Amino acid sequence: MAKNKRKDVGAHESPSATPRQLAELLRVGKKFDLSRVDSSATPGFSGGRADGEVALALGAAQLSELQERLFAAGFSGSSNGRVLLVIQGMDTSGKGGIVRHVVGAVDPQGVQHTAFKAPTAEELAHDFLWRVRPRVPGPGLIGVFDRSHYEDVLIVRVHDLVPQAEWEPRYQAINEFEAELAAQGTAIVKVMLHISPAEQLRRLEKRLYRPDKYWKYSVADLDEHAYWAQYQEAYQAALTRCSAGGAPWYVVPADRKWYARWAVQSLLIDVLTKLDPVWPAATFDVEAERVRLKALLAAQGQ
Amino acid sequence: MAKNKRKDVGAHESPSATPRQLAELLRVGKKFDLSRVDSSATPGFSGGRADGEVALALGAAQLSELQERLFAAGFSGSSNGRVLLVIQGMDTSGKGGIVRHVVGAVDPQGVQHTAFKAPTAEELAHDFLWRVRPRVPGPGLIGVFDRSHYEDVLIVRVHDLVPQAEWEPRYQAINEFEAELAAQGTAIVKVMLHISPAEQLRRLEKRLYRPDKYWKYSVADLDEHAYWAQYQEAYQAALTRCSAGGAPWYVVPADRKWYARWAVQSLLIDVLTKLDPVWPAATFDVEAERVRLKALLAAQGQ
Repeated sequence: MAKNKRKDVGAHESPSATPRQLAELLRVGKKFDLSRVDSSATPGFSGGRADGEVALALGAAQLSELQERLFAAGFSGSSNGRVLLVIQGMDTSGKGGIVRHVVGAVDPQGVQHTAFKAPTAEELAHDFLWRVRPRVPGPGLIGVFDRSHYEDVLIVRVHDLVPQAEWEPRYQAINEFEAELAAQGTAIVKVMLHISPAEQLRRLEKRLYRPDKYWKYSVADLDEHAYWAQYQEAYQAALTRCSAGGAPWYVVPADRKWYARWAVQSLLIDVLTKLDPVWPAATFDVEAERVRLKALLAAQGQ
Repeated sequence: MAKNKRKDVGAHESPSATPRQLAELLRVGKKFDLSRVDSSATPGFSGGRADGEVALALGAAQLSELQERLFAAGFSGSSNGRVLLVIQGMDTSGKGGIVRHVVGAVDPQGVQHTAFKAPTAEELAHDFLWRVRPRVPGPGLIGVFDRSHYEDVLIVRVHDLVPQAEWEPRYQAINEFEAELAAQGTAIVKVMLHISPAEQLRRLEKRLYRPDKYWKYSVADLDEHAYWAQYQEAYQAALTRCSAGGAPWYVVPADRKWYARWAVQSLLIDVLTKLDPVWPAATFDVEAERVRLKALLAAQGQ
């Protein structure tokens, strides 16, 4: 297990990738092949776990300021921009950790979080996007999908929950849906947290030795594990068929949680930097209001 | 201005109040009189701003663990408990800061945040509780209302937005609504952040000297300021008429932001401690699953 050593070698030789560089590095391109991605790698990051945790803490301040500006611009109507972060990945890949440690660092007022579960009977009676549309973020917000409409071409495809004739057209429907969101000013960041099957088993095993984690364990998890290859195939299809310009996929190696968190934070910083929200200008006469306030304060003996 | 000194004297003489003691201290009782509350006081806290910030950081870990247990119990169906935090207060009283610095410390997945704005035409066409009901938290969640159904007996009453014959019965309707929530397992914590009129003016003035805060300023704010006395009267009525056992009001002196944040965090810790959510027991044979996992890991050469 050279697990904690391999990246420390040469840690100080080259700086880590900028958010822009990292996005290029992790972005799913035309010839993308999921089976060739090393889930234990840390592309674009020079350093080990401790460095990663420091980088995450530093990035949090930057992300938080960008988010506040986005919120202010949306609030005042000076910008139409908003962000949608879609998080996908096999069980235990760390989706919840991204929400907690990356998204959790910004003001909750500016975040709209949705965890999509198995659809209800009512949801199943509608088109698969029916339950998704009301959850897309409004101006100024960061929408977070913990699982998403992609489940309808992942678990649904792996287990034939609907016939192929029904799931096959969904790739196209998703592309149209996301193009529509992008046209309305939504910067879409789709992240697949990529772990190895062995890493999944190790994480499941850990839950069995911590009574405070039993509730996260289900015997169905191991049954699902048996479908690993089919899931990778379904991911490969989703990643390559739904990676249009306005809604790119990023595959983030996630065997190392600290790396995945840093990487997703960088991807959010990248997309917000591109949106470049600015503090709204005053819509009132600042000087006149200052005078008015001074008078009121004086009247109160202040 | 002895503002930063007064509480430092004797800071180490007595320990701060426990969450339980603080709740008793701030709770609105039968003979409550808002006009007698000192908005610059720091009841139950021994120490100054720096101590308050340390206490907040320490409390965050405790709150976070309680929240996670609540979430786990709700998720697994082992408990019906949930929390509703209602935050009210005059403009600039720090409602957003509570969301950011107190609520923001827990896992966003377990929080359902709603900022109630001026009602839409559709919302006005329904009963005042119509838009509130869908936002009450489900099991395991902490619901946060930034403003709430109380606006319908505050701004509405102050400005006669509906006739008295319409707002008068709302106190009773609110009591029934909240009793219903309490009966379903909702621990309700209603907080009024209490500032002085001078403090409001100072906070508004600050916004006029920071271009990154212009967006938070509206000329209407000063117009509203003129109704201070009427608002205090409306608060007095809401606080005393809607403070039933299952849905108490707490008036939190809020001229010092650090104190208000520490106090609201303590009130949440108090209510969660009373709910006492426990980690759900395993619903499967732990030993059998460990064996199954060990075999799968061995098969992968791990």
